[in-house]
Amino acid sequence: MPLRNADFQLIRRDGNARRGSFLTAHGRVETPVFMPVGTCATVKGLTPEMVHATGAQILLANTYHLAIRPGDALIRQMGGLHAFMNWQGPILTDSGGFQVFSLAEKRKITEEGVAFRSHIDGSLLNLTPAKAVEIQENLGSDIAMCLDECPPFGCDEKALQGAVNRTIAWAAKCLDAQKREDQLLFAIVQGATDLGLRGYCAERLVAMDFPGYALGGFSVGETPEQMALALAPCAAFLPENKPRYLMGVGRPIDLLRAVEAGIDMFDCVMPTRNGRNAMAFVHSGELRLRNACHRGQTAPLDPLCSCYTCKNYTRGYLHHLFQTEEMLGPTLVSIHNLSYYAALMKGARDAIAAGTYGTYMQGCLEGWGQRP
Amino acid sequence: MPLRNADFQLIRRDGNARRGSFLTAHGRVETPVFMPVGTCATVKGLTPEMVHATGAQILLANTYHLAIRPGDALIRQMGGLHAFMNWQGPILTDSGGFQVFSLAEKRKITEEGVAFRSHIDGSLLNLTPAKAVEIQENLGSDIAMCLDECPPFGCDEKALQGAVNRTIAWAAKCLDAQKREDQLLFAIVQGATDLGLRGYCAERLVAMDFPGYALGGFSVGETPEQMALALAPCAAFLPENKPRYLMGVGRPIDLLRAVEAGIDMFDCVMPTRNGRNAMAFVHSGELRLRNACHRGQTAPLDPLCSCYTCKNYTRGYLHHLFQTEEMLGPTLVSIHNLSYYAALMKGARDAIAAGTYGTYMQGCLEGWGQRP
Repeated sequence: MPLRNADFQLIRRDGNARRGSFLTAHGRVETPVFMPVGTCATVKGLTPEMVHATGAQILLANTYHLAIRPGDALIRQMGGLHAFMNWQGPILTDSGGFQVFSLAEKRKITEEGVAFRSHIDGSLLNLTPAKAVEIQENLGSDIAMCLDECPPFGCDEKALQGAVNRTIAWAAKCLDAQKREDQLLFAIVQGATDLGLRGYCAERLVAMDFPGYALGGFSVGETPEQMALALAPCAAFLPENKPRYLMGVGRPIDLLRAVEAGIDMFDCVMPTRNGRNAMAFVHSGELRLRNACHRGQTAPLDPLCSCYTCKNYTRGYLHHLFQTEEMLGPTLVSIHNLSYYAALMKGARDAIAAGTYGTYMQGCLEGWGQRP
Repeated sequence: MPLRNADFQLIRRDGNARRGSFLTAHGRVETPVFMPVGTCATVKGLTPEMVHATGAQILLANTYHLAIRPGDALIRQMGGLHAFMNWQGPILTDSGGFQVFSLAEKRKITEEGVAFRSHIDGSLLNLTPAKAVEIQENLGSDIAMCLDECPPFGCDEKALQGAVNRTIAWAAKCLDAQKREDQLLFAIVQGATDLGLRGYCAERLVAMDFPGYALGGFSVGETPEQMALALAPCAAFLPENKPRYLMGVGRPIDLLRAVEAGIDMFDCVMPTRNGRNAMAFVHSGELRLRNACHRGQTAPLDPLCSCYTCKNYTRGYLHHLFQTEEMLGPTLVSIHNLSYYAALMKGARDAIAAGTYGTYMQGCLEGWGQRP
């Protein structure tokens, strides 16, 4: 009997914002939480110990990439994803669907699933709901995601309706296919910014009683304001007693607005990808470390941050590392950015628990120079 | 009054091999010792804590690269190389001369020094003995090297003689230019494989009473056998009571032969450069991790190694990291290779102290499949 319950504990509400926690086979996760992305079973440029030290509680790994290289059967043989990559905390895997829609070539969607060619070697692959579950069970993640169809931004009503219906049908098939008892399966609500469709999709999925729910199809082209407006009603379609996950989002400001709307979980490549490109998120906004103004500066990235990078390195040294294209630059700024995201969520958890989330969010926005 | 003494302690001799130690402003170094190379004030892909954990006692940084970027004056302003790169152990800097001869363009050698164009931006620079000392004093390394002329391999007798004479004259000028009292200045013996010239050069430099001596101009094109044959006589030209440093060498087998000849210190990019290129040094020889035979393998790189990489990762995972071109692959194999080099030198120190260096070396060579 597969695991139907993430034991979500709602500790405190502050407006719609929620301070909670949920349980996985590799430990409990405090929410709101940000999940660093380890696409190919590694958070780029960081050891698992470094990732852990940033305050990260749970990682995301990408099913599409891992199924292609090195293959999910091989990872299963090697003891599963945790042993493979040396991360003993919780791991969430996506279904592979999003990458099929964004990376793969010549894809063809049917009611059964999606056929496509690998972006690595062009080989023909087929992803069905049952296959997506099988791959994720091979990987051995703590949280698996249902195969969904993420329609392109701005597609017509009929295409959107079709995607929502397939997403619902595929979720039921994923549930049927599930065998592992130590893996939580989350469903994904689609429907773009059409609240009617979002509500319809959520209602059908909630009836199937998944242990957690995600909002997919955000941050795919709509404006941040469109997303922010849709989030509170979409979150309200979901059960109070299950974790809510906003997929692929986002900037610090997007996280805070989503927490305000009642979202519990996030993932995004932004802190690591931007970190590799010399961009640091700090309390005063953003720093671009290749800029000449950082040359010789002895200040840390962020005087309010206590991460490894800020405790030990100057902006001047980080500028030098990027000027000389040294690997340590991307590593150190990724550490800082992940620490910044983790601290942002820790601050949100503490503020919600204290009933001061509004003040906390306003303070962050003012620091970034954003109008609250 | 500049520091004239490295307080070299000769703990034990075993044949020509020496177990000793010497003192720097940032602590004592046990010899024989291998120094990892941090060309641009970073050992590529590793934090200083990672480097320390490999067993490294002292790093080498490159004066030529740092003088060009970010500039030695800037590093001095920022508190010197140790603060800049967050390494609190000893640092040795080369004189910049070797890179002028190998990297720079349009160089012109005179009795005063060498004029050249930067390989980064083509700007015209001038390196004199006094300037080499000044730059290294700005960097604030624990050991500075005299400016020398490293003649190309196979040059004619006259050119070699000229290079040796300039190297001697420049060493005297470096000694005169030295101001810092916390920096040891080592002289460099040139002369290629011409033992007469080596002896002449060493004699003149020893008369100037430097706190340490290096052998330069090895591993520049001669065969490993030519080098091995020349090392014992060259080492014998140097004082018993000073550390002896073989610059830019080399493979594990080269290190063991040089220790046998009486050398105390080494540096080389090989463990880190090869590590970045998926080549691991192990007790049984060498592994090339991109090879398909490592796919899915659950063994560590080296079952006899206790480094972070070997304790936590499989060959199969490392193979995957290189297949997907993930940054963590170069980092993990560099950690292993530096650990392997440090352990090789630790083994040599223990064996010399026990009077069993010959057996130790034979055991290593047999493991690598080399005829002793």
